[in-house]
Amino acid sequence: MMVVMSALMFDILEGCKSSAARIGRVTTPHGAFDTPAFMPVGTQATIKGLMPGMVSDLGSQIILANTYHLMLRPGSPLIESRGGLHKWMRWPGPILTDSGGYQVFSLAHINTISETGVIFSSHIDGARIELTPSRAIQIQNELGGDIIMAFDDCPPAMAGLREQGNQVQSRVSSGPRASTEPVARIQQACQRSVCWLDRCVAAHKRSHDQALFGIIQGGVDLDQRDWCLRQVCSHDLPGFAIGGVSVGEGHEGLKKVVQHVAPKMPQAQPRYLMGVGYERDILVAVRAGIDMFDCVLPTRNGRNACAFTSTGRIKLRNARFSDDPAPLDPTCDCPACGGGYSRSYLRHLFMSGEMLGPILTSAHNIRHFQRFLLDIRYAIAHNAWPLVQQRWPTAFATDIPELSPEVPPDSP
Amino acid sequence: MMVVMSALMFDILEGCKSSAARIGRVTTPHGAFDTPAFMPVGTQATIKGLMPGMVSDLGSQIILANTYHLMLRPGSPLIESRGGLHKWMRWPGPILTDSGGYQVFSLAHINTISETGVIFSSHIDGARIELTPSRAIQIQNELGGDIIMAFDDCPPAMAGLREQGNQVQSRVSSGPRASTEPVARIQQACQRSVCWLDRCVAAHKRSHDQALFGIIQGGVDLDQRDWCLRQVCSHDLPGFAIGGVSVGEGHEGLKKVVQHVAPKMPQAQPRYLMGVGYERDILVAVRAGIDMFDCVLPTRNGRNACAFTSTGRIKLRNARFSDDPAPLDPTCDCPACGGGYSRSYLRHLFMSGEMLGPILTSAHNIRHFQRFLLDIRYAIAHNAWPLVQQRWPTAFATDIPELSPEVPPDSP
Repeated sequence: MMVVMSALMFDILEGCKSSAARIGRVTTPHGAFDTPAFMPVGTQATIKGLMPGMVSDLGSQIILANTYHLMLRPGSPLIESRGGLHKWMRWPGPILTDSGGYQVFSLAHINTISETGVIFSSHIDGARIELTPSRAIQIQNELGGDIIMAFDDCPPAMAGLREQGNQVQSRVSSGPRASTEPVARIQQACQRSVCWLDRCVAAHKRSHDQALFGIIQGGVDLDQRDWCLRQVCSHDLPGFAIGGVSVGEGHEGLKKVVQHVAPKMPQAQPRYLMGVGYERDILVAVRAGIDMFDCVLPTRNGRNACAFTSTGRIKLRNARFSDDPAPLDPTCDCPACGGGYSRSYLRHLFMSGEMLGPILTSAHNIRHFQRFLLDIRYAIAHNAWPLVQQRWPTAFATDIPELSPEVPPDSP
Repeated sequence: MMVVMSALMFDILEGCKSSAARIGRVTTPHGAFDTPAFMPVGTQATIKGLMPGMVSDLGSQIILANTYHLMLRPGSPLIESRGGLHKWMRWPGPILTDSGGYQVFSLAHINTISETGVIFSSHIDGARIELTPSRAIQIQNELGGDIIMAFDDCPPAMAGLREQGNQVQSRVSSGPRASTEPVARIQQACQRSVCWLDRCVAAHKRSHDQALFGIIQGGVDLDQRDWCLRQVCSHDLPGFAIGGVSVGEGHEGLKKVVQHVAPKMPQAQPRYLMGVGYERDILVAVRAGIDMFDCVLPTRNGRNACAFTSTGRIKLRNARFSDDPAPLDPTCDCPACGGGYSRSYLRHLFMSGEMLGPILTSAHNIRHFQRFLLDIRYAIAHNAWPLVQQRWPTAFATDIPELSPEVPPDSP
């Protein structure tokens, strides 16, 4: 099956025999990527600590950059004048930019939210800035990513959850700030995001080479999700995303939303679950039919001496690693593990504040997720889920304590 | 001409027609390196921000690691138990370790200096530690470097200079702490270093695979230098070094010392000028017959947004680079310049606090010095000094203002 879009082609190559998972290939003006895909996050136009060639060698075929950060510094006109994001940051492959919505609601000091957009103060220098749907698209047009995202209203992390009595867990990101606002805030966010989507579509000047994805909001309220889904997916867009997750709803909340929403999303377009996540989150989502993921976990944890392994996470500052000759993960082929770097040496780098610790551990963690996705794509094609379970037990664990975030959310 | 030593072989391959410069090849148990050689500094068993493969790709054939830092953290027994420095840090080529003397006198809080050695407090945790000649050699035996250095008494930066009325300039490193002590301190340091050398030789347990170099002290006092030279070079050692430079004596002071001392050093052994330096310092020293150099400049400056170019240094935080599409140096083939990274992008990385800025600029700066040494070796073989002058004008400039150090001396 082939769907030709103006800026994006999505070929679904194979479906899973035992779930809604599918493998596919997305083709953009800057090359193709296999789905389900994991996108490392390069917030400020760099995957922290890694040269683009290494990011690619680790198995990454597409990366994400953050509109919010780049609009504040150095500004999208400068990047456009230098030939766009790909050329400027020396990443020749596909790039997805988010719209800035999530960061405005999580990082900035918001002065006003209205139907028009958001007025906020920059987290860098306090400058007063307005971001509207059309402005968010204009900036993304200037940045030049292959996939761009609609500007949405991202409700605070706890909105809606309190009233439903869900237990809020500490997750990947502290996300948009907690709030005592009611479920009505979720409804408002849905309505506003749907209204803003029309303006995004109208403002988009590069639909010939940039694919605009719509975003479905709705928190953990499935009725709201259904309403938003219908509205957003009524647009003829090259892809759709589930937003408003990874903001405190926990694995069970995420599972509920994704299993409810993903199967109802258009079949022929790529489905993107924003900001997710841990292995078990990705596994559940893939089996529900999600095609694309992004997450700061590999690099953020990597900078903080936390390494992912096939049997769980390890914190390298722990004294027990001081003379441990083993690699981070004996099953891994990354530059750290394949290069013969021991946990002993990596611990020394972190204890000494040396850059090479974050560099090697970030590289390892990205490779960890790319290997996981490789095995998932193999499992979809060959219905080989027992193999995934054998190799990635943590993705099937039901009771994994979340590590609390160690760095502020502006540090992917 | 070939001199076979127990742990080190030095072949002088060609002499310069117009100076005392020579090109040679030093062979160690972990491979060979061409001389004149530039050694990047990996203080804490890592060239800051760079994987060993890249350091090697930049043209580095030998690196330096600091005994003082590694004895404090993680300790030499741990490194020995993990198979030694080469295996632990994944640098398969030659390594030189210093003795710790310079750092004890520049970084630590010294409690006592006596004929026995030095008692000091660690700059990391204040722990009270004794370092003696035999202990310094024992630690270096445990670390396992191919070339190890005698433990010497490093007089404070200003000692001796004041009385001679020399103008003290701010140089590469703030070096051992300033002092009001007289020229007698230099004499004492010379006598002590000579006395300690005997103990170093006696303590050395791995002369079969580690080459111990003696160090000539003496500040800018040429009589002291002569005396120390005679004493140190009376030992049958595989190599000799000039120490106590780059501590505030300035280019003219350095030139005076090196031009006086180098020609009197043994011809058949490699001559190492410790902690030097800028291009013009290296050029003068090579032409006086020096074979080996180490310096923190490429990485320390690289981390601080200062890039070396063939026409001078540039500070990347300067606003004029914000939209500059040029590479750091159009004549350079490093991963930053050859990889198409613009000054505009590099400036953005530094302004945003991104690791990739220091990484790329450090790589560039190391390549800058390795390319300079490549051209110098070519010039020696072909008496092609006009070529060096044409390509590296800063090495011939007589009036270059020194950039003040931007980071403390424990941050190479």
